[in-house]
Amino acid sequence: LVIRDVATAVLADPFVAMNAVGLVAFALVGASKAIREEYDLFGIAVVGLATAFAGGATRDLLVNRVPLALSDPTEIGLGLLGIALAIGLSIALESPDDHPVTLVSDAVGLAAFTTAGAIVASGAGVSSFGVVVIATINAVGGGAIADVLLDRPPFILFEDFYASCAVLGGTTYWIVATVGASGTTAAAACAAI
Amino acid sequence: LVIRDVATAVLADPFVAMNAVGLVAFALVGASKAIREEYDLFGIAVVGLATAFAGGATRDLLVNRVPLALSDPTEIGLGLLGIALAIGLSIALESPDDHPVTLVSDAVGLAAFTTAGAIVASGAGVSSFGVVVIATINAVGGGAIADVLLDRPPFILFEDFYASCAVLGGTTYWIVATVGASGTTAAAACAAI
Amino acid sequence: LVIRDVATAVLADPFVAMNAVGLVAFALVGASKAIREEYDLFGIAVVGLATAFAGGATRDLLVNRVPLALSDPTEIGLGLLGIALAIGLSIALESPDDHPVTLVSDAVGLAAFTTAGAIVASGAGVSSFGVVVIATINAVGGGAIADVLLDRPPFILFEDFYASCAVLGGTTYWIVATVGASGTTAAAACAAI
Repeated sequence: LVIRDVATAVLADPFVAMNAVGLVAFALVGASKAIREEYDLFGIAVVGLATAFAGGATRDLLVNRVPLALSDPTEIGLGLLGIALAIGLSIALESPDDHPVTLVSDAVGLAAFTTAGAIVASGAGVSSFGVVVIATINAVGGGAIADVLLDRPPFILFEDFYASCAVLGGTTYWIVATVGASGTTAAAACAAI
Repeated sequence: LVIRDVATAVLADPFVAMNAVGLVAFALVGASKAIREEYDLFGIAVVGLATAFAGGATRDLLVNRVPLALSDPTEIGLGLLGIALAIGLSIALESPDDHPVTLVSDAVGLAAFTTAGAIVASGAGVSSFGVVVIATINAVGGGAIADVLLDRPPFILFEDFYASCAVLGGTTYWIVATVGASGTTAAAACAAI
Repeated sequence: LVIRDVATAVLADPFVAMNAVGLVAFALVGASKAIREEYDLFGIAVVGLATAFAGGATRDLLVNRVPLALSDPTEIGLGLLGIALAIGLSIALESPDDHPVTLVSDAVGLAAFTTAGAIVASGAGVSSFGVVVIATINAVGGGAIADVLLDRPPFILFEDFYASCAVLGGTTYWIVATVGASGTTAAAACAAI
């Protein structure tokens, strides 16, 4: 259902929709991990926002513009929404960071940010290799920062399925070149596995 | 007395004054830590300059301009002055990196860089959240890099009082919006505690 | 012989020649290290390209332009060539990452990237300190990223001869100001030791 809603919204305004979904989903995932580690409210907010914003901020630096997270106030609203959801889940559920809701959020966020990154990169006139790299960084940057902040080794990324998924999504985006929908499909396939 | 001098200079030209104070103070703190770890002169200079420049360089990248440390030769002069002070202190005192002079430098540098970051961010048209983030990064970036170069865990930042202080200073700056003075007051309060 | 070829090419178009040599050499070095650690093909390609591109991408961000690696497709071709050479070497030789070919590649790449970084920085209107810093980052960034990706401590850089060599090369470049040739000489001296 979540994936279907995203697909519908995407057809109207792909970047805004994908970016919003990614922000809420990654803030939720990051905050859930911080809650599990028994961080205080300040720590939960920092990890949640950093997870939501790190990938997009790196993307924006690479295409030479001021990070959206710093210039657009709606980004913080969406990040805080994700953190609030994580806190709500942590009250309602027992181990929210392993719960299917959180795992689905992670997969959806990965898919959404891969697509958002590919859209921004395509508009910035980089090479096709650049599109794949920027889409991947947008997607995996947040998780890498969360791991650093939570004092875990960040490059589990390279051992498991996660980064490959984002690379695949970015590549698919470039191949099909039909904005958004294709990225979502590839990412949905990843999420499904 | 140091804080009073800063407050006076601030009224004349807030960014230049705050940035200069921060550069000297953080170069002194970084070089003192490197001296304690028995680094050679090259290592002391690298750690001192990196501590002084890392926060401001990150700030400049985020607002999309070439780092001042790379384009303005006076920045290196101020950094070298801080390093020279640290070497002087290490000859005059027994454990210079725990001495009140160094601790006060750290607090003053934190206050000065928080204010300098807030001034730059305000001028770059970012959101109020962006002002707080950039002020905080300007203030804590140097200490984080110093810890990495000295092979200590950098995120003690998030456990102790240090980062909260910078966030508070940046927020105060934004609330009061009377450039400089307010930031200094907030930071002086932090330093006092 | 390799160094003599570089010197000849440098006289025609110093930045393009130096950058091309650096890309192939560092991709070869990075990929060789990944092969030794028994990474799969995806891992070898990621480490090889990251080693080749990290220094130059950081340089480009510091002078405020979109990284060449993301905008210029020939950069990926040169990176892939270096990776292919590393795979070829790993089949032909027993321990390719300690073999003289790889060690010479590392030294040549260091020299070439120091010069390429100094050329870009000189053209970007930074201070002479900025030229040295950017040349050094261009030269050592790739090796630092390779170490992080291979899960080794990255700051061996600061303990050994490596970084000093790049700093020296960048400084020489600035002093002599006769583009390229001087950098190559200094770097060749470093490589010789």
